[in-house]
Amino acid sequence: MIVVLKQNANKDQLENLKSWLTNMNLGIHMSEGTNTTIMGLIGDTSCVDIDLLMALEIVADVKRIQEPYKCANRKFHPKNTVISVGETKIGDGNFMLIAGPCSVESREQICSIAESVKQSGANILRGGAFKPRTSPYAFQGLKGEGIELLLEAKKETGLPIVSEVMDLSQLPLFEEVDIIQVGARNMQNFALLKELGMIKKPILLKRGLANTIQELLMSAEYIMSGGNEEVILCERGVRTFETSTRNTLDLSAIPVIKELSHLPVVVDPSHATGIARFVHPMSLAAVAAGTDGLIIEVHNHPSAALCDGQQSVTPEAFDKLSREITQLLALIKEFDTQ
Amino acid sequence: MIVVLKQNANKDQLENLKSWLTNMNLGIHMSEGTNTTIMGLIGDTSCVDIDLLMALEIVADVKRIQEPYKCANRKFHPKNTVISVGETKIGDGNFMLIAGPCSVESREQICSIAESVKQSGANILRGGAFKPRTSPYAFQGLKGEGIELLLEAKKETGLPIVSEVMDLSQLPLFEEVDIIQVGARNMQNFALLKELGMIKKPILLKRGLANTIQELLMSAEYIMSGGNEEVILCERGVRTFETSTRNTLDLSAIPVIKELSHLPVVVDPSHATGIARFVHPMSLAAVAAGTDGLIIEVHNHPSAALCDGQQSVTPEAFDKLSREITQLLALIKEFDTQ
Amino acid sequence: MIVVLKQNANKDQLENLKSWLTNMNLGIHMSEGTNTTIMGLIGDTSCVDIDLLMALEIVADVKRIQEPYKCANRKFHPKNTVISVGETKIGDGNFMLIAGPCSVESREQICSIAESVKQSGANILRGGAFKPRTSPYAFQGLKGEGIELLLEAKKETGLPIVSEVMDLSQLPLFEEVDIIQVGARNMQNFALLKELGMIKKPILLKRGLANTIQELLMSAEYIMSGGNEEVILCERGVRTFETSTRNTLDLSAIPVIKELSHLPVVVDPSHATGIARFVHPMSLAAVAAGTDGLIIEVHNHPSAALCDGQQSVTPEAFDKLSREITQLLALIKEFDTQ
Amino acid sequence: MIVVLKQNANKDQLENLKSWLTNMNLGIHMSEGTNTTIMGLIGDTSCVDIDLLMALEIVADVKRIQEPYKCANRKFHPKNTVISVGETKIGDGNFMLIAGPCSVESREQICSIAESVKQSGANILRGGAFKPRTSPYAFQGLKGEGIELLLEAKKETGLPIVSEVMDLSQLPLFEEVDIIQVGARNMQNFALLKELGMIKKPILLKRGLANTIQELLMSAEYIMSGGNEEVILCERGVRTFETSTRNTLDLSAIPVIKELSHLPVVVDPSHATGIARFVHPMSLAAVAAGTDGLIIEVHNHPSAALCDGQQSVTPEAFDKLSREITQLLALIKEFDTQ
Repeated sequence: MIVVLKQNANKDQLENLKSWLTNMNLGIHMSEGTNTTIMGLIGDTSCVDIDLLMALEIVADVKRIQEPYKCANRKFHPKNTVISVGETKIGDGNFMLIAGPCSVESREQICSIAESVKQSGANILRGGAFKPRTSPYAFQGLKGEGIELLLEAKKETGLPIVSEVMDLSQLPLFEEVDIIQVGARNMQNFALLKELGMIKKPILLKRGLANTIQELLMSAEYIMSGGNEEVILCERGVRTFETSTRNTLDLSAIPVIKELSHLPVVVDPSHATGIARFVHPMSLAAVAAGTDGLIIEVHNHPSAALCDGQQSVTPEAFDKLSREITQLLALIKEFDTQ
Repeated sequence: MIVVLKQNANKDQLENLKSWLTNMNLGIHMSEGTNTTIMGLIGDTSCVDIDLLMALEIVADVKRIQEPYKCANRKFHPKNTVISVGETKIGDGNFMLIAGPCSVESREQICSIAESVKQSGANILRGGAFKPRTSPYAFQGLKGEGIELLLEAKKETGLPIVSEVMDLSQLPLFEEVDIIQVGARNMQNFALLKELGMIKKPILLKRGLANTIQELLMSAEYIMSGGNEEVILCERGVRTFETSTRNTLDLSAIPVIKELSHLPVVVDPSHATGIARFVHPMSLAAVAAGTDGLIIEVHNHPSAALCDGQQSVTPEAFDKLSREITQLLALIKEFDTQ
Repeated sequence: MIVVLKQNANKDQLENLKSWLTNMNLGIHMSEGTNTTIMGLIGDTSCVDIDLLMALEIVADVKRIQEPYKCANRKFHPKNTVISVGETKIGDGNFMLIAGPCSVESREQICSIAESVKQSGANILRGGAFKPRTSPYAFQGLKGEGIELLLEAKKETGLPIVSEVMDLSQLPLFEEVDIIQVGARNMQNFALLKELGMIKKPILLKRGLANTIQELLMSAEYIMSGGNEEVILCERGVRTFETSTRNTLDLSAIPVIKELSHLPVVVDPSHATGIARFVHPMSLAAVAAGTDGLIIEVHNHPSAALCDGQQSVTPEAFDKLSREITQLLALIKEFDTQ
Repeated sequence: MIVVLKQNANKDQLENLKSWLTNMNLGIHMSEGTNTTIMGLIGDTSCVDIDLLMALEIVADVKRIQEPYKCANRKFHPKNTVISVGETKIGDGNFMLIAGPCSVESREQICSIAESVKQSGANILRGGAFKPRTSPYAFQGLKGEGIELLLEAKKETGLPIVSEVMDLSQLPLFEEVDIIQVGARNMQNFALLKELGMIKKPILLKRGLANTIQELLMSAEYIMSGGNEEVILCERGVRTFETSTRNTLDLSAIPVIKELSHLPVVVDPSHATGIARFVHPMSLAAVAAGTDGLIIEVHNHPSAALCDGQQSVTPEAFDKLSREITQLLALIKEFDTQ
């Protein structure tokens, strides 16, 4: 961590700062230039509150050199994390294909889609029971009943399930859910993250619409520092000025995250683009960029979906896509060994 | 609402769509052009799920003409809302000056700041008990104890208090808090918004870092449609590529919101800029742009604040600012009557 | 085009508007709702100045249904454009691999890189002679001499060349350059675009850092409406709040552009990410998303490049990448025929 | 400047780097931590090419401590710059009120508006002759004839004039224009900026839609390093995801620029909001935030303006606004002396 001091910094305040830092077991290197004096902090600075330093009268600027996260940091955990869900694995070369409807609507709907995506190669079933909707007048999901129906589909097909929790009061309903999803709008719901750090279940953590990759890793750190190290990160598009897609899918987040962290990362092209016909090319692109998994919305009657129907592909389209993904994964793996 | 149909839309599907819309008591005007056929929907379209329409195979595009919110819409409530908090009012010419520390740290700290800002003209005391922090290793607030201390400061000074709730499980602690704040990161925590719609207490709703004004009004709609119509909107900066301030304060949101909605709007220049020395000019600018209130961080020892110290002004700076605000408000009021 | 009228619009002004529109050979459909009256304009609205309409006192809002571009619009030119540069083609299944250094530095440098990338499969040589640099103190390119050296490399290797023009006064120097590049910062340099519309040479038009896809197509329209229909569009990242990459590469722009336009589109992963080690995965991702070409910075001594060295891959890395691109293209082509 | 070295950096390369830096007259302070080694560069680093450093194999990161601009930097020019245009001054307490139509349309139009805004207190006349328009089919300005008409209005009213140049080939037409405007889309047209550095005339430099304040100052540096130190900076809104205004006016840019630079800064609320009725509140807000001037579009028949009519206020509205600005300026000046 680099602390840039103001010109003519008060000597006493400087001494106070130095002894405070020394008490935190940090080494200090002073470097005096013509216009600026710089303090280099040596040691574990992840606990230093950067805002507190910035607030000091004698400080002009503070720049981090080390990342402020530890559990999620590849520097301290060089090996890729592998997370197991039933017989399925994700990470370090294991690919997870998650598919299912935006919302669970009925027993028949969820079971038939589950059966269909399983046939096509999906190894996890997704389905929304609690739906975060911008409008209070829009369909909000079947809630507890939706979870029940998902569990039935799981029983019938053997597919593990993932579903989104919107508030920690809903957690008891998720006992048999295999992976708990934290939606983009809840990425910085810190009360929820802390609670999820205390359970033993993989968490699918979606990047917020206006959050940086570092903030995504800090949210993972919230969960991991509580003891739950099974976090799957999810890129699902960020908000920009572009309006032809719902959000702008940031695929470079994949190699960036893989460099910074050991956690697996998946991509959600359905929510990112918001348009079914762009799901196919963006899924292939994500695989080529090195994603560890995909989460794709599939609906048997796209035009009647109760929510987000425009971003759901048909079972037929998913089947073709899934076969292509398999071939592409094989080619990419070949590249890595060349 | 305008529905743009695809070329050569299937006749049967078109008839289905028409009868579905007619059943919702909407009138339909068809308009056939050379390349496109357009359907104009007449009536109350706020309940029409735009995603559902977009999902239909025969639909190319849907454009809203009416706003999707009703309770928060000035069209249906032309008169400015006035919200009373104790003897203080906000809206329709009543100005609310909220001040206090980022975090409550001790009895002595909160009471002395409360006394000081009251002397300087603040009519509401702010103070964080539950602190949303990006890092799990940063100070998270005194929580319940912080609320207790705020209540003591209220008792001593008579100032009503506002504090942020981070999760609905914390709500019981807020019984005697006068205004409940929803932070930017929780603007779309819909479970929390719904719960706040069922209590009788003003809500200070902050705009999310990447949320549009329409989304802010939709979140207000969540609260209002539940029965609680006392919502104060807060502009606190949006995220852009600019790095010289923490966020970019969008002051044009003030006249835009005042046109679209009857709700009062306040500005938080402390969080928006993140830098104490920019709070002064941006506060004056907000007043000139027509804000109904300001929420300003004040700290007696800025360099020792446990969080966000760099954005807190000193009691002396606040006193000068408060006097200037009073003079500026008088001048702006004079302009309006000229 | 949909014109939303204000409530209680003045009758005379409305009649004036109607006759003005009728004179432009546009049909008008009126649709009166309870709160709003809407006017649907039928016919060729690409010449209607949307700002002019918006300025009218009786108009509340205007929404385009048709795209404001014609020459670049797939609706009017359903077949993919194919552009030939020497023996190389781009578009409709023809892939263009452009490679070379950020800046031309010396005869030896450009010729050896040209030879090397040719061996690796590049079919166009890139090299900057005029360099747009944020700082006036940074290296600005060899200018005219740089173009000369590029032409020598072209002569030696037979590779066609592409280079960036920064101002129309430089155009005479580009007579023997095969493709003229318009940089992101010049995407809306309309004086330059108009001039390029009058020459007969392919133009590589880069998307601006904060420009929408529609604006990119409008800039292409400037060139095409002047008579030069050989425009290659280039996605090179947009500016967001994310800081771990220089810009955020918007790969969904590829399928979006292919739907809206018949023009070929290439991707520049070097400038988008700004970091050499992310060029490889993002190149493969772009191919998987359907790009018609790539433009990649290659440098023989990356650590000594006079500009943007950090985003240049080595000849060895490029060779491996090029072979993988060939294999990936073959697989993607196979997918399309399945 | 801080150079963060990679772990286990090659010793020879490190020695090469050190001698290269020493040759640039920079001092070097090494600081070795447990995980990272940091190099502090002491001296004038404005000429160090940050990209070149970043490109070195042994370098992990580079962070600037000093600003990369000198001529525009307040550190080296503590006193506010004052620019004189005829009898009008701007900067250091001198306020410049620029008004006029978006486009010059006719002799009668420009002269009558000029007369009107002069009566209302404007001290500079603006008017577009060359109009940058997104669409090639939109009105592009009267060009040379427009400049002629502006000069006639200048002669009649005595008001100095400002108009936008779009390309350096147009410069000869601007000989009698008092202030030359560089539009937002040309902020990084470096060929144009260099040329403007060689003339003796104030330049009004608009911030680009997606440019940082530092980049704006770097563009000013291009002009100033050429010898022309009379640069007026202009904030005119940046592009965000918000759609209720054309752009998002960044008023905090005013205090930020005033801290970083000695140059005067003006605000253009007309282009920023794009909506005439928001010009009034945002003008007052800009004055309260400390702007040195305003540039406001005024049109005598707003509904017939050939371009951007929706953002032009009427002469009556401008007259009221101008009187309020005068009163507000007096109050703000009073605050500064309190």
